[in-house]
Formats: sequence, C-alpha cells, structure tokens
Amino acid sequence: MEYIQSNQNAKIKAAKKLTVKKNQRKENTYLLEGWHLVQEAIQSKATIRQIFATDKYVEERALRGFYDQTFEIAPEVAQHLSETKAPQGIFAVVELVENTVPETLEGRYLLLDAVQDPGNIGTMIRTADAAGFAGVVLGEGSVDLYNPKLLRSMQGSHFHLPVYQGKLLDWVKRFQHQSVPVYGTELNQSAISYQAVPKADNLALILGNEGNGVSVDLLLAADDNLYIPIPGHAESLNVAVAAGILMFKLIEG
Amino acid sequence: MEYIQSNQNAKIKAAKKLTVKKNQRKENTYLLEGWHLVQEAIQSKATIRQIFATDKYVEERALRGFYDQTFEIAPEVAQHLSETKAPQGIFAVVELVENTVPETLEGRYLLLDAVQDPGNIGTMIRTADAAGFAGVVLGEGSVDLYNPKLLRSMQGSHFHLPVYQGKLLDWVKRFQHQSVPVYGTELNQSAISYQAVPKADNLALILGNEGNGVSVDLLLAADDNLYIPIPGHAESLNVAVAAGILMFKLIEG
Repeated sequence: MEYIQSNQNAKIKAAKKLTVKKNQRKENTYLLEGWHLVQEAIQSKATIRQIFATDKYVEERALRGFYDQTFEIAPEVAQHLSETKAPQGIFAVVELVENTVPETLEGRYLLLDAVQDPGNIGTMIRTADAAGFAGVVLGEGSVDLYNPKLLRSMQGSHFHLPVYQGKLLDWVKRFQHQSVPVYGTELNQSAISYQAVPKADNLALILGNEGNGVSVDLLLAADDNLYIPIPGHAESLNVAVAAGILMFKLIEG
Repeated sequence: MEYIQSNQNAKIKAAKKLTVKKNQRKENTYLLEGWHLVQEAIQSKATIRQIFATDKYVEERALRGFYDQTFEIAPEVAQHLSETKAPQGIFAVVELVENTVPETLEGRYLLLDAVQDPGNIGTMIRTADAAGFAGVVLGEGSVDLYNPKLLRSMQGSHFHLPVYQGKLLDWVKRFQHQSVPVYGTELNQSAISYQAVPKADNLALILGNEGNGVSVDLLLAADDNLYIPIPGHAESLNVAVAAGILMFKLIEG
C-alpha cells in the first residue's frame, strides 16, 4: 500500500479539490470525511474511487475489499485534507449520484426552499431519513448537497434516501397532479396549526429560508400552510427544529 | 460621540477579550453581537455597559438612551470584534446574570447534560423559550452560556428565561423532592415512547451529550426515560431536533 507523506502528492491535491462544488461536478466525485461516513458509503454500495486512511484504519475489516484503492496517509496529510480541527484520519473519494425523479410520488417528501445554512440542511435530511420520509428536494438557492459541512451534519442519510435538486414549483405541480397534498410552512397564526393536520401516507412538506421563510410563490401554490404555535417568548424556531417537530407530528398523525 | 478607528484602542481591546470565558468571569461582562441581540438586551433591561456601533446604527432610536455609553466604530473595527465573516456592525458589553435557584420549581425545565456543541445548546435554549419552558439548567461539562456561538444560536432567549449552571444530580433531587417528574432520554426501545407521556405542567426533561447521550447516573435517577421511535434508517436524531420534538410534544400532551 502506498504511503503518502506530502500534501503535494498529486492524489492528495486532487482529493482536496473535491470539497468544492465546481470541481465535484467536473470530476463527478466528492470527498467524504470520517469513519462513520466511509462505513456508510461502503455499506450502501456507493462507488468509491479512493480511500485515504491513517495507520489506525488501514487494517480495518470494512476496508478489505478496497485494498487497491486505499492509500495510507500521514497524520499531517489527514489534517490537510480535513475540514475539522481534530480529524479522524479517514477519507473517501465517492461518485456523485444523480437521482431521477420517480414517475409515481409515494411516501412523504421534504422540500427545502433556499435554506442557507449547510448544517441546517444536513440536519433536516438526517431527520427526514429518521422519520422514514421517501425523499428530500433541495430547491434552487440552497447550498449544494456535497458541501463538507452539509455532509457532516447529514451523517450519511443521503445513502439512505434520495436527495433531488430542482425547481420546487415544478415539484409542487408534480405532487398536486398526483393528488398528494403539499404543505407550506409560515410564521403566521392565520395558517393552520400543525396539530390539526391529519396523518397522510403521501405528502410534501416545504421548509424555507432561515430569515425569510418559504417564498410567497410556494406558499400560494401549496394546498395548505402550517404553523407551529409558540406559547413562549422566542420569536421563532430554528428551521431544523421546526422541521423535526413537523415531520414527527406528520408521521404520528 | 467618540469615533474609534483602531483595533488598538483600549476599549476595543478590552471588549474583544470579553468573548472568552475567563475574562467574562473576571470582568462580569460579555460581548453581545448583532442588532437583534442588542435590541433584546435593551428591551429586557439587561445592564449594558458599552455599545459599539458602525454609522448605520448610531442614529437608531433604540440606542437613544445609551448615548453616553455608545461609541462609533469603523467597519474594520467591527470586523475585528466580530465572530462572523460579515458582521452587522453592532456590539454591546453586557453584565452577566447569575440566576438564583427558586425555592419552588414550577413549570417545565430543560436540563442539558454535557452537551458539547454551542450551536446545539443555544438552539435548545431558544426552543425551550419558544415552548414556554420555565428555565434551562446547563450541567457540568457543557459549554459556557456566554460562548459567542452559543449566544448567536440562542437568539436572545437568555433574556426571556433563566439559564442556570449547576450539578444536574442536585437538580434532579430538587425536582423529585417537590414531586416534579424527571424524564431522561435515551436511544433505547426499552425506554418509554415519548408519545405515551401525559401532559404535565411541571416537569424536567434531560437531554445529553451528542455522542454518549445522558449519563448513566442521571438515567438511573430519573423517574422515567423516554425515547423517540425512529421508523426510518438514520441511527439517531440531532440532539437539538430531538429536544424540539420532545418539548413540543410535552406541552401538547
């Protein structure tokens, strides 16, 4: 197994570039960091092109099938590749997946309208995965799915459920064409309380931008708009918390 | 009004130090950043010692009562003081508040056991505030309340409800002594589903460390331990999302 000691190594330089959207699209790959995520990639049979691992990982059983693509790296190289202060020391170069829109939209979907913070997006995808949702759609203006912070907070959920990128208004039409109810969300007491929504096996739920909420076009297009009554003093909830409360309520009915 | 152009100005150097716990405790003050938070401090009648504002804020009506303590700063100085890449340009030096434990514990309380991420802690305090909780207790091993990232995600909720710091086992005893039910939380299906808990006006809910959950001592001391059933594939929920789901369920009953 090749041992890489220098940040100037061509493979390391190429891998480091794969944390940036432009290069990810060009190479059709992204860089995944951390033992949990690399294991998830392996288990879900993602296409792994390379693995870079410090000595504590190279003997791991899960990596056995990947001997030809695995390179041992020095701790300094792990620090160079990492987005964190205390890297675990394992990375994988993984192929992007472009999910095709299913003809029939069954199950529950989460739609994210111009959410800005990658940590919030990743957390919401993770929560949708936990709640058994069928998919997530990132609208235009959202951070890219393979943003390093987003990957970290998503915890591998993109290996469990499809994440689409597209125009949300088109998606809303698709759902409505199939009689799937679409729920917007807003901080507005004239909207419908989330507690009043009946349980439904098929639905779409839209969460919006941290500062501005769901855009007016989408609120108008939605079948109903929901709000979470706030008995206390905070003006609003963090968007990922609101999404969690709503998703777990909607599956409970 | 004094105009401060240099990062070397003594007041700026002193204010900059107030982002660090050690100096906050010594001076009994912390540095608050952002227009929303400064307004919250003013409205809640927190003791404000100084305000540093760029020209766009100095004429603001809300600052009129603070003319003697307000200093105009250059944009470069705002960048120097800021914890963010694109600062709004307003800061306040605010006195710490030490909340005394009430004799009678009424209402709902959130207890945080060794939660590590300041963003998670701030988000949970914000959610507790929204849910109308009576207070939050940060146990030993949690990040300090006046951590800049925590202040940012808390969105001023510490001006709305008391946040205590102390030993959680002592707090659990206090609640139980007053017959207030204490609920731990764990990722364990042998715990009680959160959906089965009756609504209660008085209760304490414990959330734990991101990796390790609530410590065993506290799980054993709690009256009951709750879990959130996860129908999907994610192994767990983000702790702030779990806290939000639980708090909004517990107020709904």
